[in-house]
Amino acid sequence: MAAAAPPLKDELDIVIPTIRNLDFLEMWRPFFQPYHLIIVQDGDPSKTIKVPDGFDYELYNRNDINKILGPRSSCISFKDSACRCFGYMVSKKKYIFTIDDDCFVANDPSGKQINALEQHIKNLLCPSTPLFFNTLYDPFREGADFVRGYPFSLREGVPTAVSHGLWLNIPDYDAPTQLVKPRERNSRYVDAVLTIPKGTLFPMCGMNLAFDRDLIGPAMYFGLMGDGQPIGRYDDMWAGWCIKVICDHLGLGVKTGLPYIWHSKASNPFVNLKKEYKGIFWQEEIIPFFQSATLSKDSTTVQKCYLELSKQVEEKLGKVDPYFVKLADAMETWIQAWDELNPTKAN
Amino acid sequence: MAAAAPPLKDELDIVIPTIRNLDFLEMWRPFFQPYHLIIVQDGDPSKTIKVPDGFDYELYNRNDINKILGPRSSCISFKDSACRCFGYMVSKKKYIFTIDDDCFVANDPSGKQINALEQHIKNLLCPSTPLFFNTLYDPFREGADFVRGYPFSLREGVPTAVSHGLWLNIPDYDAPTQLVKPRERNSRYVDAVLTIPKGTLFPMCGMNLAFDRDLIGPAMYFGLMGDGQPIGRYDDMWAGWCIKVICDHLGLGVKTGLPYIWHSKASNPFVNLKKEYKGIFWQEEIIPFFQSATLSKDSTTVQKCYLELSKQVEEKLGKVDPYFVKLADAMETWIQAWDELNPTKAN
Repeated sequence: MAAAAPPLKDELDIVIPTIRNLDFLEMWRPFFQPYHLIIVQDGDPSKTIKVPDGFDYELYNRNDINKILGPRSSCISFKDSACRCFGYMVSKKKYIFTIDDDCFVANDPSGKQINALEQHIKNLLCPSTPLFFNTLYDPFREGADFVRGYPFSLREGVPTAVSHGLWLNIPDYDAPTQLVKPRERNSRYVDAVLTIPKGTLFPMCGMNLAFDRDLIGPAMYFGLMGDGQPIGRYDDMWAGWCIKVICDHLGLGVKTGLPYIWHSKASNPFVNLKKEYKGIFWQEEIIPFFQSATLSKDSTTVQKCYLELSKQVEEKLGKVDPYFVKLADAMETWIQAWDELNPTKAN
Repeated sequence: MAAAAPPLKDELDIVIPTIRNLDFLEMWRPFFQPYHLIIVQDGDPSKTIKVPDGFDYELYNRNDINKILGPRSSCISFKDSACRCFGYMVSKKKYIFTIDDDCFVANDPSGKQINALEQHIKNLLCPSTPLFFNTLYDPFREGADFVRGYPFSLREGVPTAVSHGLWLNIPDYDAPTQLVKPRERNSRYVDAVLTIPKGTLFPMCGMNLAFDRDLIGPAMYFGLMGDGQPIGRYDDMWAGWCIKVICDHLGLGVKTGLPYIWHSKASNPFVNLKKEYKGIFWQEEIIPFFQSATLSKDSTTVQKCYLELSKQVEEKLGKVDPYFVKLADAMETWIQAWDELNPTKAN
């Protein structure tokens, strides 16, 4: 019997912000080798990343980004894994899976290796149910369905734009929690996928994330972080707030839960605190901003939504700190660059 | 070493709508015997329910309800398990756990018997987080916390009013789904408790449910079902929609997930279809009604919220069917009866 073809082989790119650890690709080889990789090097472009034989990949460093985007390269972060979003932009595929290089293959409770990519694809290919909560979680999983009392008119669901996977071992904690609970490990395997309800925000982590580029790609911007910027570690959070508001507006779904990866090592909490501390203050104003953000009926595409949101960011968050004026400007630049590189998807 | 005292022994009543199966109490004996039971007999009052020795209980049949409530007994359903809500009203305890007599003790994946009551108490005693989604589920469980990006100002959470437990074996499906999937069983043990976000409705099942009577009791009305009424099997759903709108308004939390019970037998799908079919139509209008319902600032207590909601039901759902005018009237009667039996809690 021939082995089953890998799902969506020609429709999915794997985007990796950088690879400092070659074990990473070796461990994922059985799962990743059929796919095309886009590696976006986050630091010094003179350093060389050695990719093991057998992988089909393209690699971009800062010089490449500058060459391709010209002055618009200002919207891509430098010396920060936020640069990964450049990979979303240059991809020509429908789906993206992005993963950090300290994330390894996890085992399920039966000891079987988890094919994270396969679960993300399952999540993306079946609908989401953001308009009403199903108490048995994802009604489209095998052995589950909509429970009594779930309105029949809502059972078609909506297209799924984002699949947010979780982490065993080192949980994705902020610096204060890392400092307070240095030994906490996540050993709880929760066998669930669920839709984040409409109107509810969540902290989207970029470690283990997949999305439908055609549906939400232009909103998956990881902001301005790292070199020359006042904050870090809010790149995925920023993208998560933006994509959720836009998915809610456009009638798209966001799922969270399975698949798990094994997050191998905690980043340094002292370094993290330095990166995060402004964000810890700012998020107290950012969250209410996004919770109350509404988009106009004219915003019928992701690009239009994103540009409308960038204006609101400038107007309302610009008062919190001048950084947000710069960020709003970068959001516009990002859309210009996206449309330039993806002309048929432009609006 | 002395055994630990059962939690909240003097602060919790177990309410059971009727007991047709004496194995039920025998199986739960190790868990329920320390607690006081309130049994509300749903059918013919001339029949006698035999409760095994060793249980501390009070039993109410229709004659008792009529005697205690007088003309207001019209708000309590007859020949339907919806009558259980009479037990919520006559209880004098802070917490209620209600369970159906076809629900048995389930085992967790390690084979250990699940103490459902203990898990409900844990859920009720720690806060809920309805204002922002935590991707590692209940941040107050052992080994879990708030993840990176969760606003610190929201980490106190809000008081938990309701704990909704789930079912292994026979899932809580409506008649159409039962008919289509007669063999489907729920064998997925999802090791999670989570808060249903603010603004999101859910189908609340009364099979395995606990709540804080002081916080939400007067809204836990199971409506008019059964004898003489045009629908059945929407008693818990009705209560779920009402309590969710009121919890959202008052800043209270609703949790779902653990604990599981073992739901032993599916009810007859043909009988269920007859009970449900009007509800299947009506819920298409009921859900949008509850999704858009807002309560005024003056509604500062559960009673006031519930009376305001009853007026909206009459005004807006009365157009769907005259049944809702009758139901709105019964909602008012329920509050009058509640306040009469619970004078210190009256407003």
